[in-house]
Amino acid sequence: MRQAPILNVELGERSYPIIIGSGLLGAEDLGSYVKGDDCLVVSNETVAPLYLDLLQKSLAGKRVLSVELPDGEAYKTMDSVRLVIDALVDGKANRDATVLALGGGVVGDIAGFAAACYMRGISFIQVPTTLLAQVDSSVGGKTGVNHEGGKNLIGAFHQPSVVMIDTDTLMTLPDREFSAGMAEVIKHAAIADPAYFAWLETEMPRLMQRDAAPLGEAVRRSCEIKAQVVAEDEREHGRRAILNFGHTFGHAIENSMGYGEWLHGEAVAAGMVMAARLSGIPDGELTRLRNLLVAAGLPVKPPPIGAERLSAAMRMDKKVVAKEIRFVLLEKLGSAVVSAAYDRQRLAEVLAGAGDAA
Amino acid sequence: MRQAPILNVELGERSYPIIIGSGLLGAEDLGSYVKGDDCLVVSNETVAPLYLDLLQKSLAGKRVLSVELPDGEAYKTMDSVRLVIDALVDGKANRDATVLALGGGVVGDIAGFAAACYMRGISFIQVPTTLLAQVDSSVGGKTGVNHEGGKNLIGAFHQPSVVMIDTDTLMTLPDREFSAGMAEVIKHAAIADPAYFAWLETEMPRLMQRDAAPLGEAVRRSCEIKAQVVAEDEREHGRRAILNFGHTFGHAIENSMGYGEWLHGEAVAAGMVMAARLSGIPDGELTRLRNLLVAAGLPVKPPPIGAERLSAAMRMDKKVVAKEIRFVLLEKLGSAVVSAAYDRQRLAEVLAGAGDAA
Repeated sequence: MRQAPILNVELGERSYPIIIGSGLLGAEDLGSYVKGDDCLVVSNETVAPLYLDLLQKSLAGKRVLSVELPDGEAYKTMDSVRLVIDALVDGKANRDATVLALGGGVVGDIAGFAAACYMRGISFIQVPTTLLAQVDSSVGGKTGVNHEGGKNLIGAFHQPSVVMIDTDTLMTLPDREFSAGMAEVIKHAAIADPAYFAWLETEMPRLMQRDAAPLGEAVRRSCEIKAQVVAEDEREHGRRAILNFGHTFGHAIENSMGYGEWLHGEAVAAGMVMAARLSGIPDGELTRLRNLLVAAGLPVKPPPIGAERLSAAMRMDKKVVAKEIRFVLLEKLGSAVVSAAYDRQRLAEVLAGAGDAA
Repeated sequence: MRQAPILNVELGERSYPIIIGSGLLGAEDLGSYVKGDDCLVVSNETVAPLYLDLLQKSLAGKRVLSVELPDGEAYKTMDSVRLVIDALVDGKANRDATVLALGGGVVGDIAGFAAACYMRGISFIQVPTTLLAQVDSSVGGKTGVNHEGGKNLIGAFHQPSVVMIDTDTLMTLPDREFSAGMAEVIKHAAIADPAYFAWLETEMPRLMQRDAAPLGEAVRRSCEIKAQVVAEDEREHGRRAILNFGHTFGHAIENSMGYGEWLHGEAVAAGMVMAARLSGIPDGELTRLRNLLVAAGLPVKPPPIGAERLSAAMRMDKKVVAKEIRFVLLEKLGSAVVSAAYDRQRLAEVLAGAGDAA
């Protein structure tokens, strides 16, 4: 039954496969990855009507419970985690139970964190249905929820036992969310693979039409890059931080605007242009990055919230080590480093792009 | 400055020392174990007035914040975890911050779980002040809180970076809590060391008078046994479960009575006698176990809550694997195994010791 291409995330005893393909939901047998009898599918009000029945077919022979969360980043809270845990308790789920996340990054983060905490950790499977989740959040084991004080302040590293990506689910994704996911695809190319970046420049029109062939290839290549970086540094003590390219500025934009105004990928897109400017790469490369983001329907500058406010929001970001902000900088397109050795004057100029305080 | 005896818990890159001695609080330099500048001491309303000032002396040169929780198992909830996380956010604690637990098992479980979740895991130091916490809960990395559906249903494995045990803190412990801690000391001997069991039989009168010399020795030997079992099986896939001797019955007693009626150690004491009876060890050994528990001021039979209710409570216990209850059984005093191969008729007799339903 396993015909879909499989990538492996190499993490010793926590290694796991990523199955990528078209038409997997309902056809691929996920039950063989579930060790006990009990499954809890965590989904949301938008995704469940579209794909819950199909996923249940992939779990034939198991006892499948489900819980539906409200849709949106605003619900990425401890209260939602509690709903999932309550469903596990009500279902008398034991240590052999498996939590499946069916949905985007928010569902995956909540479900994964609940699985990490229930009985100090039970199995977890990711079935991401958004581009953002497929190329980014479902791979790597980061789970967690937001706190009034900042994004993802409460969470755990909890690796899934398998990730199943059915690229057909991207056909129902709203345009704006599709573009937001493409920001992370572009990020992977920008930090790790100049040839992939050039390929994206050529293929972006077909990708934006959701042409299945290049789309499957982009998901596969992005997962491969992410899996490799994660395998080198599972708990983000060092190199894994390059995946945060554009995120220090991006989180600050999200924080300042209030969650939900800008999508994560949109904030990261503008953040990547800011980080690239701070890096001091040649104008030609900066233009290529900007053009590729525009071709993907993404913003390339921050909203006019004022340099002061943006700067303050950055300081509460959790990438602050020893009170000093470190940035992911590009050495050139396709190669990134984490550094606190940036030009302070240039940072002020980049922040000034957010305008004066209103 | 390090004169106190040090035990090591061998867990590869998660290995850590346990420092045991008299007069350590305020004298031993704990700051050298804290990598960043920021510490958050989590304590409760009972322990803070007694020992917070002394602990702060051991952290000279660090920025020390503190949070005080209400005292008692009833507060071992997600709400208390949230108080700790809020304190970290308010104090702008970053990834280099350290959470210190100053208190008993409840404080350690809450503080440890908060440290496990904050920014997906920050450093954690245990400074246990009850006998139960010193010999049991502070060693081994289990953290977590209760859910309406059961004890410790929400939690994480999160190893401390150091455990500092000042046995002087036992002098202020109420008698009933001291006895409850002694239940775990007796448990360690019963499951792992017949010579230690015989030594406890001889020394119990002096231990109950809180004579510093034998008390220090008992704490050291119990930590050693626990550390060794944990080192063999950190995440309780197998052998570590022997530490649950008496706990399947004990948790059921706690659950049936409502948390707080019986102390954990009291329930475990009665649970150990029940488990020993189920094991079918010779009457002479059963009597020795019972006598030692009585000498420690502990109950040796369950409250009259009825066999049915106790049986139902056991089934929700998280040690239920594949719908079948496994017990920790004694092969003889000083040696335990985990098994589902027990005599069903004898289990019914043991449960009948809880009387008929009221």
